Parts: sequence; C-alpha cells; structure tokens
Amino acid sequence: MSADVNANETIEFLRERQIRFSDCDPAGIVFYPQYFVMLNGLVEDWVDDALDIGYRHLVIERRIGLPTVRLEADFRAVSHMGDRVVLALSVERLGGRSITLKLRCAGGEGETRMELRQVLVTTSLATHRAIDIPPDLRAAIARHARIVQ
Amino acid sequence: MSADVNANETIEFLRERQIRFSDCDPAGIVFYPQYFVMLNGLVEDWVDDALDIGYRHLVIERRIGLPTVRLEADFRAVSHMGDRVVLALSVERLGGRSITLKLRCAGGEGETRMELRQVLVTTSLATHRAIDIPPDLRAAIARHARIVQ
Amino acid sequence: MSADVNANETIEFLRERQIRFSDCDPAGIVFYPQYFVMLNGLVEDWVDDALDIGYRHLVIERRIGLPTVRLEADFRAVSHMGDRVVLALSVERLGGRSITLKLRCAGGEGETRMELRQVLVTTSLATHRAIDIPPDLRAAIARHARIVQ
Amino acid sequence: MSADVNANETIEFLRERQIRFSDCDPAGIVFYPQYFVMLNGLVEDWVDDALDIGYRHLVIERRIGLPTVRLEADFRAVSHMGDRVVLALSVERLGGRSITLKLRCAGGEGETRMELRQVLVTTSLATHRAIDIPPDLRAAIARHARIVQ
Repeated sequence: MSADVNANETIEFLRERQIRFSDCDPAGIVFYPQYFVMLNGLVEDWVDDALDIGYRHLVIERRIGLPTVRLEADFRAVSHMGDRVVLALSVERLGGRSITLKLRCAGGEGETRMELRQVLVTTSLATHRAIDIPPDLRAAIARHARIVQ
Repeated sequence: MSADVNANETIEFLRERQIRFSDCDPAGIVFYPQYFVMLNGLVEDWVDDALDIGYRHLVIERRIGLPTVRLEADFRAVSHMGDRVVLALSVERLGGRSITLKLRCAGGEGETRMELRQVLVTTSLATHRAIDIPPDLRAAIARHARIVQ
Repeated sequence: MSADVNANETIEFLRERQIRFSDCDPAGIVFYPQYFVMLNGLVEDWVDDALDIGYRHLVIERRIGLPTVRLEADFRAVSHMGDRVVLALSVERLGGRSITLKLRCAGGEGETRMELRQVLVTTSLATHRAIDIPPDLRAAIARHARIVQ
Repeated sequence: MSADVNANETIEFLRERQIRFSDCDPAGIVFYPQYFVMLNGLVEDWVDDALDIGYRHLVIERRIGLPTVRLEADFRAVSHMGDRVVLALSVERLGGRSITLKLRCAGGEGETRMELRQVLVTTSLATHRAIDIPPDLRAAIARHARIVQ
C-alpha cells in the first residue's frame, strides 16, 4: 500500500447539470467559486454512485472528511445561465492518504470550459488530521479507476 | 384581465433533489437560506419545463425579471445531507402583475419539511419596475394551473 | 418564565455592510436568498457583540442551535452591487422556547429595502428538538431588549 | 506597454474578516469554495479602496469584467466558525491583459491557512473577450504595487 499508483485517466464519471440563475453573477455568467460547488457535488455523486460508499455515511457516521489540500484550475470559456453542461471526474493518482482527481466542466459541444486538478486527503473529522485512505474506499476507487494495486 | 383569478391549487409541479454537503451548515442540516436557492431552481424548471417559456430567454433576451416581493415560510422539520427530497410548486393566485406560488419541500415519507408562500412580480429589468404579466406567460400559467380566465 | 413577554421594539442592533458582487444575480441586484445569509450574519454579530454570549460557543461547545421555524419577509426596493446598507435587528417577542426578531435592510437614505420577521427556537443539536431558552441567553436578550421579566 | 513587469510582492492589501456560520460546512470548518468568495470580496475592496477605481463602476458602468482564467490554491490549515482571519492581496505580475495576484488567508497567529495565485484578465462584458488593461486601472495597480513601468 506504500507505493503510489498512477491511475488510468480514461475512465470518467459523468453527470449532466443545468447552469442556474443562482450560479451566475452580475456579468450573467457562472461566478467562478460556483464551479467548485458544482464539482463538489460531483465528488459526492461519485462516492455515492460509482464507489458505492455513501458520502453521508462516510462523513457523518464514519467521521471521515475529504478536504482539499491543493487545486489548480483553468477557466477556458464562460458558461451562461440555462446552459446544459457535463461534469466529468477521473482519478489521476491514488496515494496513501491522498487522492488526485481531474475534474472538468464541458459545454454542449463537448468543449472544456473549466478544468480542475484537485488533491483530496482523507482526514479524521475528530482531529482534522490526515489518515490513511480506509481500505474499502481505496479498493472502491481502485476498482472504479481500474488501477491494479 | 383586470379581475384576479384564484388558481386551483391541486396541480403541483414536482422535482426530486438530493440534499448536498454544500446545502448544509455546521449543525449538519440544511442552512435555511439554501431552501430558497433550491426553490428558486424549481421556479426556473417550472418556467422551462411546465410553462415552456424559457427562464433564460425571459430574463436575458426579454429582460423580464421575476423578483420576490413577499414570502412567508414555515420550517417544520430538518433535512440532512444525503436526503432525497421532493420540491413542489403550485399556483395559488394569478394577479395582473403578480403571481402567488405555494412551494414545498417534502421528505422521503412525503412529510412537509418546509413550506413557502411566495409572491413574485413581473418587472422590466431596465427599470426594475412592475409590469403587467406578459400575455404568453399569463396564458401558460393559466393553462398549467387550469385557471379559467 | 411561563408568561411571554413583549419586547420594546425601539432598541435596534445595527451593522453596516457593503453589497458584494457575490451577493448579486444576473439582474445585477441582490439575489433574495442572500438577504437571509446577510441577516444570519447579523444575528451572529448580535449574539457575539450585543448579548456577549458567543455564537460559536453556543453552537459548537454548548451544542445549542437557533433554527428558524417561521419567517415573513417583504422586499420593498432592490439593492445593487456596491451599495452600503444598514442591517438592523430588534427583539419583538421573547417566548419560553422561541425568540421573534424583526430584521431590516436599509439603504443609504435610511429607506427600508427588505424587512423580515423571524421566529427562532432554541434546540438541542443532539436531538434537533426545541428546548427552553437557556437562562443566560434569556437574561442577555431581556437586558439588550430592555424587557422587564 | 508590451513588456510585462514583475511586481514587488512585498506590498500587501489587508482586510480582517470573521468566519461565519454560513461559510462553514457539516465538518464545522470553512467550505473551501467559500474561501474564493471571501477573496473575491477582497479583490473588490482592493479595486475600491486601494486602487480607487470603483469595482461597481468598472463592472456596471464601464462594462469591464475581471474573470479568473487560472488559479492555484493550497489549503494548509482549517478555519472554524468564529475565527478572525486576515485576508491579504499582493500583485505578482502585471501583464498586458492579465493581472496575477497572490492572495492569502491567515489565522490569528499570522499562520497561512490558505494561499492562492490567481490570474485575472480584463474583458469586455459585451463580448467576454480579453481586452488590454485600461490605462487608469494599469496606472493604479502599478502605483499600488510600486511597479516601475
């Protein structure tokens, strides 16, 4: 488990979403922090539906957090209210205590509007300190990302 | 058109939604302003899907706003992260320049968690002043709410 | 303690605030749920600075919540990005387990833009059930609102 | 104007802020997108108070936007509800059409909790395309950052 594993990036978890009035700013386009709110929802859906771990169960019952420790984002094109976008997630790297995700928001023609590389760590919500990725979560991520461990 | 019409309240427009991590506060339950964000999204969906008017088209191309002038809300039970809720909308009253909606958020057993009566007015976004409800919007609402005009 | 007491409404707790880009919607005005976020911040400041109870201490250490059970709001005039507004709070009624507040957002000329009557209850955050207002909180509110108990 | 200028990073624009209940998530700590909302407010204050340009004037009257095209953020320590934090901004680079800012959120002991490098571009809000930084904005930034042009 000590060796880090590079994930196959080709498997993407996808969800459609509509850009809401409440996502947009006085310039009529998505207020950029709102992309992070949307993509946080995508991570929840991935833990629920692709990993079958249950985000609420993880956070509330098991008291395990998934805070972000680093992110890099590029904003390539604007999104407007009413746009149908596709949010995409893939695993880039599975470390001992960290998970590196690649996330994207794509427009109706498939063009990338916003791209995010995000490093999450697993923490104890009692102490807010990093802990090893729990074995069931690790196995589920590896299975989903088709990582051979 | 001057006479106000009382709507049949029994026709509800419904949407399911999952309570997100980002909807919740440090008490682990929905932060109450977030209910209004959710229900604002429901009004958008209603204008798009039930009325077939296009919310974005209304606001951006036609420069017609639907600001809230009054609301009354009762919060009967809490919602937690991960809950599947049903959001419901019905038309209570269709005035000359105002629309009174009844909105609800119901939990998994159908129990009402939060209820809202909301009065919207149609405004010109150039002046932020009230204007008559445009005839196509009025007709669509009357049709959806089965109001005889 | 069983008799409810009507508060003197003339004592207002005030805070200035600037309307932010992030408070506003594609119509260029405050997105209405954002008024509730602002006024929730005012309640925090009131508990911290006027009541000297400590909002964080109340919620986190004492595990006492102040959820909203009912509200009525009137929106009288729009607020734009960059506006300096005054937020005002007064106590309307102090019940056994509930506190009724009157809250306002006023513009630069003192004109009321938005008004809110909000009923909060004190709850145990362990059970989310209503509990009696703790004596120190009750005494502090009564002192601030000059309510004779 | 074609040559880019490297800014002296030592001049910081500072603002204090309290972490709000509404900034925090069910883990009781700042929900990370909320840092971007806070720091967007800091950029507004900087344009208003340090540059003396007027953020609202820039966006609404002059129809010039300041969207983010790239950011890199590191989250080093958590912030809790009620914390007093200091938000800091300095100019790292002033390009022809872009401004690179370094932003920080520091805790009560001055320790950095979150750090952000953010590249903004000036755009026309009519077309959402990049435009040259207007001369008065450029001069104000250079003056504030003590950049010799």
